[in-house]
Amino acid sequence: MNSREMKVELGALGALVESRLATIFSDGLTPERLAASMDYSLMAGGKRLRPVLCLAWAELVGGRADKVLDFACAIECIHTYSLIHDDLPAMDDDDLRRGKPSNHKQFDEATAILAGDGLLTEAFTLASSLELQPDRILKAIFHLSTAAGPRGMVGGQVLDMGLTGKSASLPQLREMHAKKTGALIETSCVTGCILGGGGDSDQALASEYGRAIGLAFQVTDDILDVIGDEAALGKPVGSDEAQGKSTYPALLGIDQSRVLARQSVDQALAALSGFSHPRADFLRAVGLYILDRTH
Amino acid sequence: MNSREMKVELGALGALVESRLATIFSDGLTPERLAASMDYSLMAGGKRLRPVLCLAWAELVGGRADKVLDFACAIECIHTYSLIHDDLPAMDDDDLRRGKPSNHKQFDEATAILAGDGLLTEAFTLASSLELQPDRILKAIFHLSTAAGPRGMVGGQVLDMGLTGKSASLPQLREMHAKKTGALIETSCVTGCILGGGGDSDQALASEYGRAIGLAFQVTDDILDVIGDEAALGKPVGSDEAQGKSTYPALLGIDQSRVLARQSVDQALAALSGFSHPRADFLRAVGLYILDRTH
Repeated sequence: MNSREMKVELGALGALVESRLATIFSDGLTPERLAASMDYSLMAGGKRLRPVLCLAWAELVGGRADKVLDFACAIECIHTYSLIHDDLPAMDDDDLRRGKPSNHKQFDEATAILAGDGLLTEAFTLASSLELQPDRILKAIFHLSTAAGPRGMVGGQVLDMGLTGKSASLPQLREMHAKKTGALIETSCVTGCILGGGGDSDQALASEYGRAIGLAFQVTDDILDVIGDEAALGKPVGSDEAQGKSTYPALLGIDQSRVLARQSVDQALAALSGFSHPRADFLRAVGLYILDRTH
Repeated sequence: MNSREMKVELGALGALVESRLATIFSDGLTPERLAASMDYSLMAGGKRLRPVLCLAWAELVGGRADKVLDFACAIECIHTYSLIHDDLPAMDDDDLRRGKPSNHKQFDEATAILAGDGLLTEAFTLASSLELQPDRILKAIFHLSTAAGPRGMVGGQVLDMGLTGKSASLPQLREMHAKKTGALIETSCVTGCILGGGGDSDQALASEYGRAIGLAFQVTDDILDVIGDEAALGKPVGSDEAQGKSTYPALLGIDQSRVLARQSVDQALAALSGFSHPRADFLRAVGLYILDRTH
């Protein structure tokens, strides 16, 4: 599958997610200002990479995307809440997100805190309302909440705060990113696999693919920050270093960072080698696309 | 059951909850500062009313408290997160909680936001790891997340912000409290009933009991604020009115507020009339205890 074909599939799966996301808070049971604030961030665009990975892994092992869609949307709700809280004045204090005012700038700080809380909680309402085998849903909820919680994403955010202004070691940087951004990408793949009907060995491969893709994504993000693809990042070149954050290029140099990204994508592709479903091609192309961002 | 006997049972069930809460973040997988911040608020005392209601309702319909304990603790995690976020400078800006520095005062604002996020997420890890019938667990998770989320507690918080400084009508006040504080108390009873094995009619009674107790709790809180039981409330007399918040005594007068509290407790007691399990006595005594606080 070439890059153009991959983007068409990514767009189609993303559009499926998008259309469901748009309806979540339109039932009239959520106070208007809160619904507006959650929708503002939820519908602010993005490639919907995480929910698309969830859907693709579900299909890869024989499941149906429509049966897993609400879980994929739950993952996007969690991703969105994390961006809203990250932007708060007490955290990264960002006024802009994807070129638009961040949630607390568009609304106010209290509303932004509550919009994040609401999106995070709603994720589990969506997840628990699937119509699939209850034991598989429970296993997926356990995996998702562990990945997003104190042992995963929230923990990674705290580790990141602890590293700011210090020079981190490579193992520290990897642990921080594995939790802060990697865990949610990994769980997107693993929960899709669980809900699609995958067995233990499939789930192990989904985990391997997800972890490798997550690392490649972070490393290429850091590289892009250095080589200056402002448009792709939506932030000033070198801003991470200016904020005293450690990056892969800073620790490894650009060339070794490229090697690490390449190795990670190779590992992701290896995890897919046993699958013959057409979605395997798509998932391979996603990996290569992540790598191509830095060229 | 007299008040002393009720307090002994409340203490025993509360101690069961307390001992489990103390172990949640001690597995070494949560970054130290985050675990310390979550434990600081989680272990700051309180009567553990919500988890105890969950356990008591589970037993009332024939379930086992030890099988439901992690779900009860999940409810307490959600209650605790809501207190941490409520106290933030952008929200109520409270420096003290139960006589101790609030979480963001003891740690810092970013850590407090993340501690709240972590506790909320962890609730669903706890809930999804129960060893009971998967379909019952899923139903309970759906009920809990709906009660705690945008259509429940988080929504009620936004409604409360919208009413501050205005004179609310009685229906507005009731809707706000039903969501902000009532929904979590109600879901404590209903989810306990679901997980304990209760049928649809039991669940309807648990809902009725929970809603009535929740209203009685709020009305007596407002009355206590006026008649000045500072010790019971831990806040200055009349502080709600000083902050421009509407209260039941302000809208109904003290006498009619007492009538409303009495009627609510009567309704809660009526919901228990068909149960012969010893825990029914306990749940009746809890209702009467809430009422007695204002005498």
